[in-house]
Formats: sequence, structure tokens, C-alpha cells
Amino acid sequence: MDDSNQPSHLEAPARSCLFRAVGFLTGDMHVFREWMKRRVLVIQLLDWIFRGVAQVMFVNNPLSGLLITTGLFLQEPWWALNSLLGTVVSTVSAILLGQNREAVSAGLYGYNGTLVGMLMAVFSTKGSWYWWLLLPNVFTCMLCPVVSSALSSVASKWDLPIFTLPFNIWCVFMLQLQESTTPSFQRYSTSCHTQTRSHMMQIKYLFLSVPVGVGQVYGCDSPWTGGLILLALLLSSPTICYHAMLGSAAGILSGLALAAPHEDIYSGLWGYNSALSCVAIGGVFYVITWQTHLLAVICAFFCAYTTAAVSKLMSALALPACTWPFCLSTLIFLLISSEIPAICRLPLSAVSYPEENLRYQRQLRALEKAQHGQQSGGQEEARLRESAGPNVQLDSRSPSPPLQQEDLDLCEKKLPRCEVIKTHTQRSVWVCVCISIYIYE
Amino acid sequence: MDDSNQPSHLEAPARSCLFRAVGFLTGDMHVFREWMKRRVLVIQLLDWIFRGVAQVMFVNNPLSGLLITTGLFLQEPWWALNSLLGTVVSTVSAILLGQNREAVSAGLYGYNGTLVGMLMAVFSTKGSWYWWLLLPNVFTCMLCPVVSSALSSVASKWDLPIFTLPFNIWCVFMLQLQESTTPSFQRYSTSCHTQTRSHMMQIKYLFLSVPVGVGQVYGCDSPWTGGLILLALLLSSPTICYHAMLGSAAGILSGLALAAPHEDIYSGLWGYNSALSCVAIGGVFYVITWQTHLLAVICAFFCAYTTAAVSKLMSALALPACTWPFCLSTLIFLLISSEIPAICRLPLSAVSYPEENLRYQRQLRALEKAQHGQQSGGQEEARLRESAGPNVQLDSRSPSPPLQQEDLDLCEKKLPRCEVIKTHTQRSVWVCVCISIYIYE
Amino acid sequence: MDDSNQPSHLEAPARSCLFRAVGFLTGDMHVFREWMKRRVLVIQLLDWIFRGVAQVMFVNNPLSGLLITTGLFLQEPWWALNSLLGTVVSTVSAILLGQNREAVSAGLYGYNGTLVGMLMAVFSTKGSWYWWLLLPNVFTCMLCPVVSSALSSVASKWDLPIFTLPFNIWCVFMLQLQESTTPSFQRYSTSCHTQTRSHMMQIKYLFLSVPVGVGQVYGCDSPWTGGLILLALLLSSPTICYHAMLGSAAGILSGLALAAPHEDIYSGLWGYNSALSCVAIGGVFYVITWQTHLLAVICAFFCAYTTAAVSKLMSALALPACTWPFCLSTLIFLLISSEIPAICRLPLSAVSYPEENLRYQRQLRALEKAQHGQQSGGQEEARLRESAGPNVQLDSRSPSPPLQQEDLDLCEKKLPRCEVIKTHTQRSVWVCVCISIYIYE
Repeated sequence: MDDSNQPSHLEAPARSCLFRAVGFLTGDMHVFREWMKRRVLVIQLLDWIFRGVAQVMFVNNPLSGLLITTGLFLQEPWWALNSLLGTVVSTVSAILLGQNREAVSAGLYGYNGTLVGMLMAVFSTKGSWYWWLLLPNVFTCMLCPVVSSALSSVASKWDLPIFTLPFNIWCVFMLQLQESTTPSFQRYSTSCHTQTRSHMMQIKYLFLSVPVGVGQVYGCDSPWTGGLILLALLLSSPTICYHAMLGSAAGILSGLALAAPHEDIYSGLWGYNSALSCVAIGGVFYVITWQTHLLAVICAFFCAYTTAAVSKLMSALALPACTWPFCLSTLIFLLISSEIPAICRLPLSAVSYPEENLRYQRQLRALEKAQHGQQSGGQEEARLRESAGPNVQLDSRSPSPPLQQEDLDLCEKKLPRCEVIKTHTQRSVWVCVCISIYIYE
Repeated sequence: MDDSNQPSHLEAPARSCLFRAVGFLTGDMHVFREWMKRRVLVIQLLDWIFRGVAQVMFVNNPLSGLLITTGLFLQEPWWALNSLLGTVVSTVSAILLGQNREAVSAGLYGYNGTLVGMLMAVFSTKGSWYWWLLLPNVFTCMLCPVVSSALSSVASKWDLPIFTLPFNIWCVFMLQLQESTTPSFQRYSTSCHTQTRSHMMQIKYLFLSVPVGVGQVYGCDSPWTGGLILLALLLSSPTICYHAMLGSAAGILSGLALAAPHEDIYSGLWGYNSALSCVAIGGVFYVITWQTHLLAVICAFFCAYTTAAVSKLMSALALPACTWPFCLSTLIFLLISSEIPAICRLPLSAVSYPEENLRYQRQLRALEKAQHGQQSGGQEEARLRESAGPNVQLDSRSPSPPLQQEDLDLCEKKLPRCEVIKTHTQRSVWVCVCISIYIYE
Repeated sequence: MDDSNQPSHLEAPARSCLFRAVGFLTGDMHVFREWMKRRVLVIQLLDWIFRGVAQVMFVNNPLSGLLITTGLFLQEPWWALNSLLGTVVSTVSAILLGQNREAVSAGLYGYNGTLVGMLMAVFSTKGSWYWWLLLPNVFTCMLCPVVSSALSSVASKWDLPIFTLPFNIWCVFMLQLQESTTPSFQRYSTSCHTQTRSHMMQIKYLFLSVPVGVGQVYGCDSPWTGGLILLALLLSSPTICYHAMLGSAAGILSGLALAAPHEDIYSGLWGYNSALSCVAIGGVFYVITWQTHLLAVICAFFCAYTTAAVSKLMSALALPACTWPFCLSTLIFLLISSEIPAICRLPLSAVSYPEENLRYQRQLRALEKAQHGQQSGGQEEARLRESAGPNVQLDSRSPSPPLQQEDLDLCEKKLPRCEVIKTHTQRSVWVCVCISIYIYE
């Protein structure tokens, strides 16, 4: 009973002991992060940048970022250079803008810069090694954190992540801007297709298009790059890697079902949105169960059909679909308010990699059960107050019912004659009116 | 004193006693619903489905749903079949998705399916009885509750209903999708007009176009269908029926004022959005007074002009206007924060049919008055009025006014020396910090 | 110590004493406003209308409004007449709609009418003195407060202003509507350019385009009008005037950098959005410091590039850019959640002209410091509760940390054995659950 509800900040060292061996290279490498914290800023920055590169796939792991960067260079050094530059610039400007250091160090202000830098190189009409491109690239990525910060202020009302929305918005703006200055948009829309090399119909290519679809998240259509990216995902979390492949496959299937042109399918243009959606729903933001796994697959298909519709709509404005379909469909699936306990969405502050999420939720459940058992007969307030520690951090984002129950119980313990009239349970606020009945001797 | 502030759940049986006689067939048939609750799920499902069909017009009444379905079959059996299928599928998938059972049983997860199913049949290029259409129909309606749930999570921040937004979004997606697969959109835009039979200018048709406009809510242009639908509305609530006709007429007038082509006017394309808006504002979401009645008429005209603008905008993307104009204009009018007491918007949780809304609000007012009277009888008048003052004005904003008022009073009864330091009055949250002053004898 | 934390409503008279000499004509002329409150409604209305005309530039000063109106008449009497009519109609209908009288008297429901009236005259194809234009003008401006009220209900969740969004939305609607009735849109898009007189490239015109850009906020391209408007800004607040010129210059620079056609630049089409953004960020909504000044300049450039992109997007729908770029970019910059203390955004309820904002913030800081000092050793609860008075009204918008701290302290003073378990600090809600530990003698 005692050990069952020991506060998790006491468990933290225990956990780190248990997982130091495994968790040093895999997961989010938090040991390495702690170690980094004692280094100078410039070295830390390296850590943050590679985490940023990996965060495009919801991976918070510098080693994965390094692998992915290698993959990008393998595809096209100029693109990789631009995306790296974008990551650096946007991370630095986020620091200058005084954004939350915790988020910056997790690379959450870098990944949009990665994509913007990459896409500006991909969509550039001037070809590779046109050095003047770095100027708008730097300028755009400098403003990326501004848009990210604004969007997350809006999304925080629903405790939602902002995904790659800043990148999408910038993509629209930049392309409009470049066209409005140099009237040569046809070459963009074609440059979208220069990525799609035409093959003759073969099963082999169909299989290849799964890693290629994952690679298209970074705008790369080389299967080797896709393979390296999958390897990077596997290193951090097998669940993410598995869902990425699953999503990419789902996208390809939908593409075939909708009779899309083969070269589009082979070049992974149907896979990358579904892959991202499947990863986001399957384990990252929802705790992975077979229900959420099913939900992830549905979301992947939903996203594929959204892709068809959105790319059709965007093409009316002569724009590429970017990752709008992924953002739309995943936000929709994250906003579902289901009463099924197995579909449990984690508060944004507690989101980590799938395996960690699962562990976190199990602990929560255990903590709860223990406390309910202990409330029935027992009076150790000290532990309770301790166990309230982590909940503050958790509640500050979005209070999940178990915690509320817990606070209520705590409330009742402290006020033996207290009576809780009613509690509003809303997404972002927990209100409890305590009333105490007095006894006058 | 005690009876004056009895909670409303004690009044519920009294109300049901009073209205069992009248309310069995009319209103929302809650007696029938209670009776249904003791039946097996399959039979309940029938109830929910017909409520869903009627919910398109904000009517929560299975008998009205049955009448409307008859009307749909009278127009075109194939369309009716598809819309029924849509209702069934979306209701079932909402249950599987673990949505709030109360909302499901009110048909709130069915009506979007009704419209999606209907519109897919209407916009289909393959003509009637093309059985393969059922496949995408089922698929689309299965995902309807997902979108509905997500949208209501967003809208709940402002305590807003989602109306037919999921249908509108799906309509855009589906049409884009079908076009992106089979390039034949012209036939949609024409199929929009196949509904509009051209007449020679006659007053008679002008009068006929009022029910036709109501019928166009379900995409039907037969006056008989429109008449049956009006009958169904009358059965549930005369107020709704009256406002539907009023709104449709307002739309027709605007159409004439804007010199729209006559066949559009006769086929009710100008009426259906205004009819919906007028019903929503006039009695359903606002308590009906002459001020809100005026507001409803203004909203109907506003909606008609919005229709002209929106359909113009959508046609730029080769899309029909669907019910976007209704959603936009009605949401705008629901968001008005007026200080006129007569314009009192009901919390979404308390919304029922107009007559019931009126009764509900009168009770609220009575309850309030009684409590104020009782408070002034008490010892510490000043303090109580202070704390009661803000809450009355707060009632019009936050979701469940009676409970709040009740809680505060209960709070004060229990804590004679309690003092409410401050209350936040915001749309969706009520915070009260109770502080008790001790007396040590 | 006592005077350090005297409540601000006691300071109000003191302040007014200090600034009656200066502040009668400059600033927001609050002395004049107080004096006006004792007049009949019709005379008050005049005050409100001219404040409304000035509020387009965030100036709450009737004299500036009068100057600006003179400028408009100087440009084109017919346009000025329409804009005045628009201001009157929208202000009156806001009163009829029961909007917050405080906001109405500050002209916050007038400025959108000003712009709508002006733009309807500018975009009219019928030329000047076409009296029938007044009809749609009145109708549109009557509905302006409806849209404003709805939008501010939405924006209040993030404590954001609505800027000229209602005007933008109406502009889109009206142009669509007029086109859908009379198919002659080319003449609008040209009428956009009739404002842009073509000059030969000269430095002189480049300098002139700075005031012209400010004038374009009201759709006027005469440098004299622009000059009068700048004078009006200077009268109310030098900071606003300075930032308006700065922003206009930034816009012109960006226009040159993006190689925009010279006549566009000279006619100020590149300046007006940036001018508005620069004013909004530099002093009005953020307290002016060198950091926020820098932010304002960045925002001005950001806005200029947004203009290029947005006008490109809108032109795809054959629409002018109106002030969409200003709204988008400024909202983005207002939503930034920075941890830099020098970037302090004021709660919307406390926003006034820059100089006043600065004073207000200094007082807040002082109040805070004093109270913290005094909590440590001192016991006057009465004053504390008094000084909590104004803060409630402040908190109801967005609780700033000092106020929360204050309430907490108040809480602890009242409950010597109280213990605050946890506090949510979110943008718009502050929850504190107090629990008291009993001692039974």
C-alpha cells in the first residue's frame, strides 16, 4: 500500500536507474538531456537542433535527428543544408523571443523551421546552390516561432498541439509571395511533380513507396532516406516506427482505391500525411490501446481522403497540399470527446513517446486506486500532499478526471465535515466549492 | 424558505405531471422517451433515428421524424432511402464511438447523417438506384460523428451548437473527392439546377415557394414534401412551424429584392437557409419574446444576403452553398452579447422546444425572485446582495444558471458567516472562493 | 506605505487633477467625456461619433475625429458623407442592440461603420452623389454591430481586440453581393486602382507616400488628408503618430524590396496595413518599451509581406485585400506568449493611449511591490479589499500574476490557518481552493 502510492518524483530516480541502461540512446534520451543541461549554451543548441529535426515525426531524440539529417543529406545536400539552417535560425529566434525554455530544448520550436527551410529549397525555381535563397530562408524561419507561439496560445484553449500548422501557413505565404514577385508559378506546381519519378507498374515499387511515403514527410522521395528515417524512429520508439509504416501503407491503399496516378503513389505523395496522422493518434497523444490503435488506422484512412479533397481545393489556388490534411484530420481526431475509458488522451504537458505514455498512465491508475483504497480507512495527509505534487504540473494543462477525484478526496480528508456540492468538469478548468459545517461546543 | 429554493430536479416530476396529457405527442415527447428507455436497444434505435431526421429542423420528436421521412419518400424514394441509411449509420457509429448517450438519444448525432446521405444521392451523377453509392454513403456517415464530436468540443467553449457544420464540411470534401476521381463537376452544378424547375411568373408559385423553401432544407423541391415537413413542425411546436414559414418568406423577398432568377426563387433555393436561421433564433436558442422575434426576422434577412454572397464565393470553387449561410449567420446572431434582459440566450444544456424554453425561463425567474426574497429576510442582507448581484447577471452567460444560483444560496445557508470574495463571470466557468471567518469563544 | 497601495479609483481624481491641464485636449479627453455624460443623448452621440471616426487609428479622442473628418471631406465630400453616415448608423444600432454603453461611448462600435461607409462609396460603380447608395450603406452599417459583438465574444476568450475584422468581412460580402446582382466586378478592381495616380519616379513622391499611406487607412490617397490624420494622431498621442509614420515607411520599404509597381507604392497601398500594425503593437496593446518598439517594427515588416501574400490570395477571388493583412499579422503578434517581462501585454479592459498605458503599468508595479512589502508585516485588510475592487474588473478579462498574488495574500490573511492546495493560472481563469484546518480546543 505504501509503495503503491509513493509520489512519482520519488520514483523518477528509480525509473532512471531502471532505464538508464536502455533509455540512454532510446526514448527521449532524458539522461543525456540532463547531462546536457550542465554544458554551455552552444553545445546544448546542437542537442536542441537535432531534437528539432526529429520532432517533425514527434520524436524527441537527438540521435534520431542525426540519423534523419544524414538521410536528408543523402537525398540532396542543398536541401539538407537549408533545412538545418532553418532549424538553427528558428530555434535561436525562439530563444531571443523568450519562449518557454523547456519547449525549446525539446525541439518544439525547431521542426517547423526544418520543414520551411527544406520546402523553400524544394520549391525554389533557381535550382540548387543558389546562395541568395538563404536570405529569405533565414528571414522566414526567424518569424516561425512568432507564428508558432501565437498558434499555441490559441490551441492551448483546447490543450491541442499545433503540429506543422506554422509551416503550412508559411508555405502558403511564401509561395504566394514568390509568385507575386516573380510570375513563374507553373514551375512550382511542376516542381511538385519533379519529385514524382514515373515508374512502370510493379509490386516492388508499391512496397518501396511505404518508406518513400515516410520520407516525403521531409519532402524526400529517395527510399534510402525513408529507410534511414524509419530506422531513426525505431531507435526512439518501435511503436512510432510501426505506426508510421502502417499509416504510409494506408495512404497508398487509399490512393489505389481512388485510382490516383501511379507516379504520385510511388513518390509517396499519398503516404506522408497518413503516416503522420497514424503516428500522432497511435501512441503519441492517445495512450496506445487496441481501441486507439484502431482509431489511428481509421484516422490514417480519413487523412488520405482528406488529402485528396484538400489538394484538390488548394490546387484551385495553385498551391501544394503541404501537410494541411494531416493537421486537419489529426486535430479532428484529437478533439473527439469519447466516453470510452480506453480512449484516454494525455494532457499535452505529459505527452512523451508512446512507451513512456503507457507507463505514465499505468502509474496514474495505480496511484488513484491506491488512494481510493487508502481514503476508505487511513489518515496520512503527508503522503497525500506529496502525491498532489505531480498533479499540479498535470492539472495546469488539463485536469483529467482521476486527478480531480483525487483532489476531491484530499479535500474531504482535510475537511472531515466538508461537503462538495458540485464540480464542473470542463476541458480546462476544475472548480470545487468546499463548504464546511461548523460545530459550536 | 426551504421550498422557495428547492432544486429543479424536484420540480421535474411536477412539470411532467402537468404536461403528460398534452406532451405525449407534441413537444419532445419525453414521456414516450422515458417509456422507450426500458425497451431493447434496437427499438430505442428507431426512436433515435426518427428524432435524428427531425433534428435537422431542431425538432426532437420521433413522430415529426416519421412524417418528414414520409415526405422524403414522397419526393424520391431513392433519396429518402439514402438519407435514412445515413441517419442509421451515423447514429450507430456515434454509439460505437462512445459519444454522450443523452445526445445520441436526442438524435443529435443523426441529423448530419440524414443530410449527408440525402445530398450524396442528390449530387450523384449516376442517377437513382445506383447501389454502389451506398458504399461511400456508409463510409462518409460513419465518420460524421467524429467530425461532430470534434466540432462540438470546439464550439462548447462558447456554449454554441454545431448546427449542420459537419454536413457542410463533408459536402465540400465529398464533392471535391468525387471530382478529383471523376472529372465531371459541371454535372453537379447542373444537378443543383435540375431541382429548379422553371415556371412562368405567377403569384401562385410565389406562395408555393414558401413550403418548397422549407422542403429544400432536406434538398426536396416538391411542395407536398414541404407541406408535410411544415405539418411535422406544427405537431412538435407551432412556434417553430411559424418561424420556418416566416424565414422562408423572408428569403424569397430578399431573392426578389436582389433580382435573383425566378426559377431559383420558386425552387426554394433562397428560402431554406433563412427558414433554418429564423427557427434557430426565434424560440429555439433564444427564449421567444417580441425582441427575439424581431431578431429572428432580421437574422432571416441577414441570412438571405449571406446566401447571395456565400454562394457567389463557393461557386468560385465550383461548390454549392449547402447550409453554410445558415450556419454563419445563426452563429453570429447567437454570439451577440446584448445587455437587453429580454434577449436571453439559454444555456445549451437547457435548450428544448420554444414553448418548453419559455416555461423553463419563467421558472428560473420565479426561483430567483423567491430566493432574493428569502435572502432579504435573512440576517446579513448587504453581504448576500453583494454576492447575489453579480450572479444574476452571470446567469445569462454561464452554462447552468439555476445550479449556480442555487449553489451560492446553499453555500450561504450552510456558512452563515461566509463571504464571497469575488466571482469571475465568464461564459463557461463560475469560480467562487469561500472564506469563512472563525469565532473562538 | 499607505499611499503606495491606495486603490486606483481613489487615484483617479488625483490623476485627473494632475492632467486636467494637459489632458483636456490630448489623450482620450476623459475630462471632456465626464462632462459630456451629463448632457442629453443627442449631444453625447456627437462625441461618440467623432471618437468612432478616430478609433480606426486606435485614437479615442473626439477632436482627432473632427480633424480626420475634415481630412476626409478634403479628399472627397461624398466619401466623407458616407463614412459619417456609416458611423452614425452603426453607433445608433449598437445602442439599440443593447451593447455595452462604455464601449459605445468610446466609439468602439463606430469605426467599422466609418470604414464600411467609406469603402462602399469608394467601390461604388455609380460614381459620386448616387443617392440610392445610402440605402445599402445604412442597411450594412446597421448590421455592423451584430458582427462586431459576435466577433468580440469569440475574441474575448483570448482577450483579443477585433480590430477591423467586421469591416473586412462586410467588405467581402458586399462586393460579392454587388457582383452577384450587377456583373461588373472589373470596375471594382479598377476602381481600386483609380486611387493610384501614376507618378514619375521621384524621391519626393516617396516621402509623400508616407502620409499617403496613413491616409489610405481611410481609403484616401491625398497627402493633405494623410497629413491632417497624422496631425490628429499627434494631438492625441505622439507615440501613435510616430509609429504610424514608422509603419508606413516600413511598408514602403518592403514594397520597394519586393519590386512592387511604383504607383502602388506612391498611392500608399503598401503603407496603410503596416502603419496600423505598427501603431497597435507599439504602445497601444503592449506597454511601450524598446523591446516592444522593436516588436512593432518587426510586425510592420511582417505585415507588409503578409499584404503581398494576402492580396495575391484575395485577387484570386477578385477581392481587394482591405485590412486583412493588418488584422492577421497584428493578432498573431498579440498572441505571442513571451517570458520576457518587458513584453507586457495589457488586459483589454485597461488599454488606453500609449502614454496612459505606461503610467497604468508603472502604478500596477508599484502597487504590487508595496503590497508584497506590506504583507510581510502589516494588517490593514480594509484597504486590501478596496484595492481588490478594481482588480476584480481587471481579472474578469485576463488575470495578470500580480493580481492573483494579491488575491492569494488576501486569502491567506483571512484564513490564518488556510492552506492553498493548488492554483490554476491560465489565461482566463484563476481557481483557488482554500482548505482550512480546524483546531478543537
